Amino acid sequence: MAEQTTAERAAVLCDAARSGDRRALARLLTAVENHTEVAEHALRRLYPLAGGAHLVGITGPPGAGKSTLVAALIEVLRAAGRTVAVVAVDPSSPITGGALLGDRVRMQSYASDDGVFIRSMASRGHAGGLAATSTSAATVFDAAGFDIVLLETVGTGQSEVEVAAAADTTVVLEAPEMGDEVQAIKAGLLEVADLVVVNKGDRPGAQRTAAQLRAMLVPSVARADRDPDRPTPKRPEVLVTTAMTGEGIPELLVALDRHREQTRTGETPAARLFRAEAQVAAVLAQRVRERLAAPAHRATTRAVYDAVARHELDPYAATDRLLALLDEGPPDRG
Amino acid sequence: MAEQTTAERAAVLCDAARSGDRRALARLLTAVENHTEVAEHALRRLYPLAGGAHLVGITGPPGAGKSTLVAALIEVLRAAGRTVAVVAVDPSSPITGGALLGDRVRMQSYASDDGVFIRSMASRGHAGGLAATSTSAATVFDAAGFDIVLLETVGTGQSEVEVAAAADTTVVLEAPEMGDEVQAIKAGLLEVADLVVVNKGDRPGAQRTAAQLRAMLVPSVARADRDPDRPTPKRPEVLVTTAMTGEGIPELLVALDRHREQTRTGETPAARLFRAEAQVAAVLAQRVRERLAAPAHRATTRAVYDAVARHELDPYAATDRLLALLDEGPPDRG
Repeated sequence: MAEQTTAERAAVLCDAARSGDRRALARLLTAVENHTEVAEHALRRLYPLAGGAHLVGITGPPGAGKSTLVAALIEVLRAAGRTVAVVAVDPSSPITGGALLGDRVRMQSYASDDGVFIRSMASRGHAGGLAATSTSAATVFDAAGFDIVLLETVGTGQSEVEVAAAADTTVVLEAPEMGDEVQAIKAGLLEVADLVVVNKGDRPGAQRTAAQLRAMLVPSVARADRDPDRPTPKRPEVLVTTAMTGEGIPELLVALDRHREQTRTGETPAARLFRAEAQVAAVLAQRVRERLAAPAHRATTRAVYDAVARHELDPYAATDRLLALLDEGPPDRG
Repeated sequence: MAEQTTAERAAVLCDAARSGDRRALARLLTAVENHTEVAEHALRRLYPLAGGAHLVGITGPPGAGKSTLVAALIEVLRAAGRTVAVVAVDPSSPITGGALLGDRVRMQSYASDDGVFIRSMASRGHAGGLAATSTSAATVFDAAGFDIVLLETVGTGQSEVEVAAAADTTVVLEAPEMGDEVQAIKAGLLEVADLVVVNKGDRPGAQRTAAQLRAMLVPSVARADRDPDRPTPKRPEVLVTTAMTGEGIPELLVALDRHREQTRTGETPAARLFRAEAQVAAVLAQRVRERLAAPAHRATTRAVYDAVARHELDPYAATDRLLALLDEGPPDRG
């Protein structure tokens, strides 16, 4: 009975959000972030209605100008009559904490524009992982009819990079290089890039950095040789922008649209399949946890964890026991 | 048959590592990092032999001096005749990439000391998560007889912070504050701290920062009122160190030992239970993946993921189907 009411409440929120009610949309996003029951009902309802939006991940090292680029992209998108939602993953980090604040204020100018919705998300405490929560938030925006959803994260954490990498198109931002120490960025981040943007293009070294990146990103023949079954990976395009003035942003939008068209043809795009697997894995892990925590199994489960904590049982043997428990079949809901 | 051989190979490596063979130890750590079959056999074998080491997580924002502190701690521990292993999680980040390098060179001085073992780990691509892999690496060091295992990570990513938070004792490092912008660090990181260390104690503002942190960390009476069943959380001790000169490091070691003694009495320490649950969850997720990928289920599983990617099936309905598949019982190994 109670569950029925939750489902109905979710349905009402979904319908309202889809008809443009921003408060309903905000409440759905809060539900998603807190993994409530409303969120599950809402996502079940919204998922089949989603899939039309273009999910764009934007990541890069602190100071590359991600928030400024997002603000510039919003401007160009709105001028083109397209609607845009932003999921800004805000690590409680000193680096981006400060920088984002300024751009947040800048983004306040869109507060009265129904074609823009900006949502910040904490980077901690997401059951199932940060990427799963952000993807669910993107699903809500997608089903609510936004044309493009920007997922903005800092590129200095495994979970944070995964958020951007799970998008249809992943943009990696770089600042012009000052020296040799930037090799480290490339190694870690470039592998997830569909597009590479050298921002702060008005600074000395921007064009040189772009040229270096282009040279670096030539697909290695040696690698293609090693695994002849795999198609040669597409070389990410390298663009130069100056987000602060808007220079290069229309060209970035063209590149984003082109990447999307390229991945749309043929089979299910790899990014969508990857995202689907990650989302199902998160729900699956949640269901397994729920089953183990059910009254019939709770005591055994707790004893198993205790034994592992005391090093009397190894995690593999413990898993075997828990799987045996689950194989008895789903417990009666208590 | 083949499995038998892998188990035997793992056993030989484990025995060698436990008797002080550093090459065997290094190979086990590589196996753990790559999640090979050898790693599983080794961890099953080593886990019951582990539990004696003190796992200490060291995290903090870039530039707080984590690597220098680790180097200083090693020195004090060795002087006290204690053995120490380090798992340094190296995010492919521009920030720590450069800084660590210098300290790595400094740590080379321990290359010929059998009582010290330093291992760097990539921060990406760990099935089951970064925290699970680091914890497994710590188990290997623990079973190999190291007295203390330091887990060093940067405090700017969800996964990275989890690594340190899963230790018996979590040390959060801070640098003396320059202004107000450091509030963001505290909000995010202090909640995982058992000990807070203000490093670079020779800089102006160090004592003031420590005093501010002490004032901030007084357990909120309001919070205790709200949930009377929960014991008032322990207030983390705040220390000031100058890792570069070694000042305050002996006191830090005393505080580490004291924290360990406090958590040892009574019930299973919360950190060990948390770690146990996380480790079992990682193995459980792996087993579920394996079952779904087994020949009997592979085609259905793939079709389900495809349907989710095309938004024809929502992740919850997809999970219901996969759980039904698993409930048919474990498939015959093909």
